[in-house]
Amino acid sequence: MQSVDTLIHAAYIIPVEPEGLVLERHAVAIDQGRVVALLPSAEARHTYEARHVVERPEHALIPGLINAHTHAAMNLMRGLADDLPLMTWLGEHIWPAEGRFVSPEFVRDGSRLAIAEMLRGGTTCFADMYFFADETARAAREAGIRAVVGLILIDFPTAWANSADEYLSKGLALQESLRGDPLISTAFSPHAPYTCSDAPLAKMAMYAEELDLPIHMHIHETADEVTQGVEKTGQRPLARLDALGLLGPRLAAVHMTQLTDAEITRVAEAGVHVLHCPESNLKLASGFCPTARLAAAGVNLALGTDGTASNNDLDLFGEMRTAALLAKGVAGDASVLPAAQVLRMATLDGARAFGLEQLTGSLLPGKAADIACVHLGALETQPLYHPISQLVYCTGRHQVSDVWVAGRHLLNQRRLTTLDETELVAKAREWQGRIAEFR
Amino acid sequence: MQSVDTLIHAAYIIPVEPEGLVLERHAVAIDQGRVVALLPSAEARHTYEARHVVERPEHALIPGLINAHTHAAMNLMRGLADDLPLMTWLGEHIWPAEGRFVSPEFVRDGSRLAIAEMLRGGTTCFADMYFFADETARAAREAGIRAVVGLILIDFPTAWANSADEYLSKGLALQESLRGDPLISTAFSPHAPYTCSDAPLAKMAMYAEELDLPIHMHIHETADEVTQGVEKTGQRPLARLDALGLLGPRLAAVHMTQLTDAEITRVAEAGVHVLHCPESNLKLASGFCPTARLAAAGVNLALGTDGTASNNDLDLFGEMRTAALLAKGVAGDASVLPAAQVLRMATLDGARAFGLEQLTGSLLPGKAADIACVHLGALETQPLYHPISQLVYCTGRHQVSDVWVAGRHLLNQRRLTTLDETELVAKAREWQGRIAEFR
Repeated sequence: MQSVDTLIHAAYIIPVEPEGLVLERHAVAIDQGRVVALLPSAEARHTYEARHVVERPEHALIPGLINAHTHAAMNLMRGLADDLPLMTWLGEHIWPAEGRFVSPEFVRDGSRLAIAEMLRGGTTCFADMYFFADETARAAREAGIRAVVGLILIDFPTAWANSADEYLSKGLALQESLRGDPLISTAFSPHAPYTCSDAPLAKMAMYAEELDLPIHMHIHETADEVTQGVEKTGQRPLARLDALGLLGPRLAAVHMTQLTDAEITRVAEAGVHVLHCPESNLKLASGFCPTARLAAAGVNLALGTDGTASNNDLDLFGEMRTAALLAKGVAGDASVLPAAQVLRMATLDGARAFGLEQLTGSLLPGKAADIACVHLGALETQPLYHPISQLVYCTGRHQVSDVWVAGRHLLNQRRLTTLDETELVAKAREWQGRIAEFR
Repeated sequence: MQSVDTLIHAAYIIPVEPEGLVLERHAVAIDQGRVVALLPSAEARHTYEARHVVERPEHALIPGLINAHTHAAMNLMRGLADDLPLMTWLGEHIWPAEGRFVSPEFVRDGSRLAIAEMLRGGTTCFADMYFFADETARAAREAGIRAVVGLILIDFPTAWANSADEYLSKGLALQESLRGDPLISTAFSPHAPYTCSDAPLAKMAMYAEELDLPIHMHIHETADEVTQGVEKTGQRPLARLDALGLLGPRLAAVHMTQLTDAEITRVAEAGVHVLHCPESNLKLASGFCPTARLAAAGVNLALGTDGTASNNDLDLFGEMRTAALLAKGVAGDASVLPAAQVLRMATLDGARAFGLEQLTGSLLPGKAADIACVHLGALETQPLYHPISQLVYCTGRHQVSDVWVAGRHLLNQRRLTTLDETELVAKAREWQGRIAEFR
């Protein structure tokens, strides 16, 4: 008998690699934070002696979901201003509230609320973009969730930094302080083409190359952004970024709702990753990301919720479902983005977008034990012909019973083990009072 | 002190009429199955002496949701065949399975599973369209939920009837047997223009007039349907139905993804109701119903889930959210179908589509006490700036704690009081075994 930390038995294990595989009555053995093996439960019981044995007989184990684009701290502005177009929403509501309230304390409390929500929804890793990323990193480390925090860059001054140079130097200092962290990595996060000038972008691209870091950026979110970019610079924003040397496999481009055929080809050739946020794009009427065409061109597509102020949740089960449904509607073809592909977008392809595919995103031996366990026994998921379809088309995030990150049991039968829900709700209400009063 | 059956105190009451109103710390008094009054909780405590007092201090009370289009019995085929276009899905999967399995027993078990799912998701009334509607009616009555069951009409023979005349006569007999039922009403339910010939449709229209019944029909679901209709009859299906005298306030037209400007005008003038099923339309790539344009033209829009074989759930919270988001994306305008309007579509406007607006769909004194109670206290719904936004944009159906239909407490703190969940799951698994084996 081989000794391991944990053995989890489940009705189904869906490792995501290979795509579409469903293992029935299997177990996953975990040791020192890594997946050791997937094997039939009966065999596992006389192969491994585990310090923790977890039985989940009506459940599916999947790789923990990866939220490839969010602004965690914005959880404190959930539902603050709905049913408004992007620029009104940003200019008249979000930016003024941010100008007044964003601080280390705001980011800490908002990030913790978001992390709790993500863990309870089966998310084990998130790529964030916000001010005071040091606070988000700390909140993630304390909670035990994996994160890619953003080294923000934007032309205008905020509470976090006063100039492009200060954004970059603060980002570099944060990156240095996080080096070697087992859970937290970083990505340069220039806000968008329309808020970042050429010179700082070029400097950032140089640093990204030198430090081998991803670049995480909102690009072609709306038609207006493209039109105004052309008016101002004579180029479509994507072409401008291309000229600056940004298009390549380290670029994770968020939204991308406005793409010509030639741009799709260029993005595919360059190895750019597209971070698709379907609910945010719909809610702000930003446009439709041509996911089926991007996928057909071979572009790696990951899935993000965006922040809760434009979604209004951090629910990747809902986002998978919306992505699958919307792709079919937009392509006019019900066979595009089938369930297994969408589950891969929400896991392995998210890891790929940030260079983490050797570490997480699928349940392969040697990878981190980042796992979500989903209850499929209730009447809402019966009958159950195809578990992967069921996960994408009729599973709610509340069905997530357990979550492990690097083998650590962070959600145990719906109970968070590293965060205090009562305290988080109380803090959220405190902020609500302050923010509502200001408005 | 006035004596009443039930007094429910909640943090918020959202009566839907008037639109947008949110009453804080109010109570609803219920007697003999009807709403007696909405009033501040403090006042209610010394006005009414109630046999049952229910305290829901972190909850919102809303009118029970109305699922304006479903095929309840198809719950037994949930997830049987996904990621396929409409005609492949129907012709190669659903119709063969129906041909083999549809029976009174199938419809009874499928309907009961669906009703349980709907009640647990806050739905208090559903408009159904399926074979053996007598079984669906019986299942609804036994469970205590409100239903509009379909008097099916279709050209081809099924287990339910052999000819158009037999469909009509069986429908009339069912209608007669349900006359005066406090919970169950009926609607003529011709399947679609492409499966119903002129003569039976004309006969049915005559009966509908005579009996004052709604007509519930799939119309213009896909572009192919319209093209083929034109090829076969020389007319677009809607024009053909208009010539047959079907367009009027008793027609509840499902899907309607293909509409010219002139057709929108005609539908508005005629007082036709449109039953919007956004998730089904997306999943089958049927097209986009122009909801914002229909609403602007003054058309009454209700919301349906369709059957679970093309959705794959009966979740009206998810459907509200998809309807709100998709309308913005399709219209290119983030301000269309705001949250309060979508909540009305899922309640009062569904009642209107079936002539039930005097009875249900809003919390007005005198109306039936059809109520859903939604928990808003968990961290996923914090902060809480605008309760109606929160309900539409970030509430999961699992947050429904309680449901009353005609004052009867059918879901009590997540527990069904008239249905046995264990038995329903066991039955669903039995059918799954039989259906999976056949395939």
